[in-house]
Amino acid sequence: MGVLAAGLTVLTAAPTGDPLPSWNDTAAKKAIVEFVVRVTGEGSPDFVPAAERIAVFDNDGTLWSEQPLYFQLVFALDRIRALAPRHPEWQDQEPFASLLKGDFKAALAGGEPAIFKVVMATHAGLTTDEFGKIVAGWIATARHPKTGRPYTEMVYQPMLELLAYLRAAGFKPFIVSGGGIEFMRIWAEKVYGIPPEQVIGSSIRTAYEMRDGGPVLVRLPEMDFYDDKAGKPVGINARIGRRPIAAFGNSDGDQQMLQWTAAGGGARLMALIHHTDAEREWAYDRASFAGRLDKALDEARARDWTVISMKDDWRRIFPFEAPKGR
Amino acid sequence: MGVLAAGLTVLTAAPTGDPLPSWNDTAAKKAIVEFVVRVTGEGSPDFVPAAERIAVFDNDGTLWSEQPLYFQLVFALDRIRALAPRHPEWQDQEPFASLLKGDFKAALAGGEPAIFKVVMATHAGLTTDEFGKIVAGWIATARHPKTGRPYTEMVYQPMLELLAYLRAAGFKPFIVSGGGIEFMRIWAEKVYGIPPEQVIGSSIRTAYEMRDGGPVLVRLPEMDFYDDKAGKPVGINARIGRRPIAAFGNSDGDQQMLQWTAAGGGARLMALIHHTDAEREWAYDRASFAGRLDKALDEARARDWTVISMKDDWRRIFPFEAPKGR
Repeated sequence: MGVLAAGLTVLTAAPTGDPLPSWNDTAAKKAIVEFVVRVTGEGSPDFVPAAERIAVFDNDGTLWSEQPLYFQLVFALDRIRALAPRHPEWQDQEPFASLLKGDFKAALAGGEPAIFKVVMATHAGLTTDEFGKIVAGWIATARHPKTGRPYTEMVYQPMLELLAYLRAAGFKPFIVSGGGIEFMRIWAEKVYGIPPEQVIGSSIRTAYEMRDGGPVLVRLPEMDFYDDKAGKPVGINARIGRRPIAAFGNSDGDQQMLQWTAAGGGARLMALIHHTDAEREWAYDRASFAGRLDKALDEARARDWTVISMKDDWRRIFPFEAPKGR
Repeated sequence: MGVLAAGLTVLTAAPTGDPLPSWNDTAAKKAIVEFVVRVTGEGSPDFVPAAERIAVFDNDGTLWSEQPLYFQLVFALDRIRALAPRHPEWQDQEPFASLLKGDFKAALAGGEPAIFKVVMATHAGLTTDEFGKIVAGWIATARHPKTGRPYTEMVYQPMLELLAYLRAAGFKPFIVSGGGIEFMRIWAEKVYGIPPEQVIGSSIRTAYEMRDGGPVLVRLPEMDFYDDKAGKPVGINARIGRRPIAAFGNSDGDQQMLQWTAAGGGARLMALIHHTDAEREWAYDRASFAGRLDKALDEARARDWTVISMKDDWRRIFPFEAPKGR
């Protein structure tokens, strides 16, 4: 493996010595580094031209946390509270009535239709510019209930290092998330270095209108695209138009994205983050509401995809934490 | 205008002397160069960071020709002929019956529903991989009825130079076309240097399916998105998520894209290509079926957008032609 050895020498010679210092030297890190060396090493039989080095990342639970509730759902609940004075009818309408009483369980008992109502009440009816300002205001001030940190600090330090490492190796990373595209774009560039045109997410329809002589895009109360499960390969094809060679997820919502990535020719990297650290983050998988990881975990084990254990493979989880000794 | 002078010096000092040699030294070229210098010159009050230098280009009639018929429509007609033996019922069904007799006028008399039927019969029902191979085969062998050239040579040399010039100045160019996204992506990277993830177009829905144990995306006979007229700003927002600072079109289908670009703050460039050269290309505007330019031309004149006359502003139109003397 002359190419691999040469690549590892380059990595070792980098200014920091190790481009992935928050990763323990376990099989997961080794799988990532070996893959990158294989597809970027000149003369490697698995060499992939830079333009085709597409890597896709789920967001919730893969790049930032998703407990105790998806952060965008917290945003929606905060919006419900802020808008409630203008909607007296919500006091008697579900799921709003339960939400306003703080009873999430009762509210979510309505399932997907209830979530749909909450999303439309909080995400539609505004122009794209107005919505962007509301998200920017919220993300700048809201704090996570457990850590007291801004949500944009609840991101995984090892994944920030991985993004930088892949970018330095000529990869173009895309977010492919079930979360709202216009919610993520507001902060994704600053937090992850991923520009808006590399963010794919769920979306609602917009309509072009003239208001006061100038054009606006109005957010309509209709879904445009669900970027989850089988929607992820659909979205990747529609938005990127190239099959990724690396895919990172953490839940059953990412299973088809990893299948689609795996089905291409040549070297591939499919990885799932397994939330195994109840002390430093959360421990959950098959029974969780947010980020349920069940069928995808079985497929990963059967097909030898990389399963990253937060507890065992990551020295450090959040940027604000001190790294654990090796 | 110290910044402008400095920028022009840089341009003059470039290896070729002039990055836009196929453009005459008229007002259109001057408007383009001045705009680029304004937004890229360090210390310029209109400076725009590289990440925000988004430029959008219509395709049909803006980057390549669209006469005597949109080239993708020719592709569809060729597909109808190829598929006809498997569809004996088409002999009695419009618009297929008229198309198979070569009577385009009768076929197109059915308007948009007729075109929709042709598109679905020729573009749906296949996997994305199968469709891509068919497009690749067609584009490699089909010839333009007037010039006998491959369609990929019916591109505008001045626009190829403009794309290279903008890229060198840190711009990221996107195609935003009413044409089919999966039709354009097959050849756009090779011909224009625009990668698939920077191609936005009209699309039909796809569905993720398992076939023989592997995943495929199947093209369904349903429209997903019309990337034309008011759909262009919608598509730009959904796919790019940033407002362009420069927009190039040639028809009423591009009017809203130029309005949306113009409505941003700071320096902007809105340009329309006017097909004025019956000798070297075609001359048409307000009365044309393909590329009708009527309302957008009025708005361009009223708002002082740049109107590029092919006859007066371009020394050379196609790469295979010798340039006209100045």
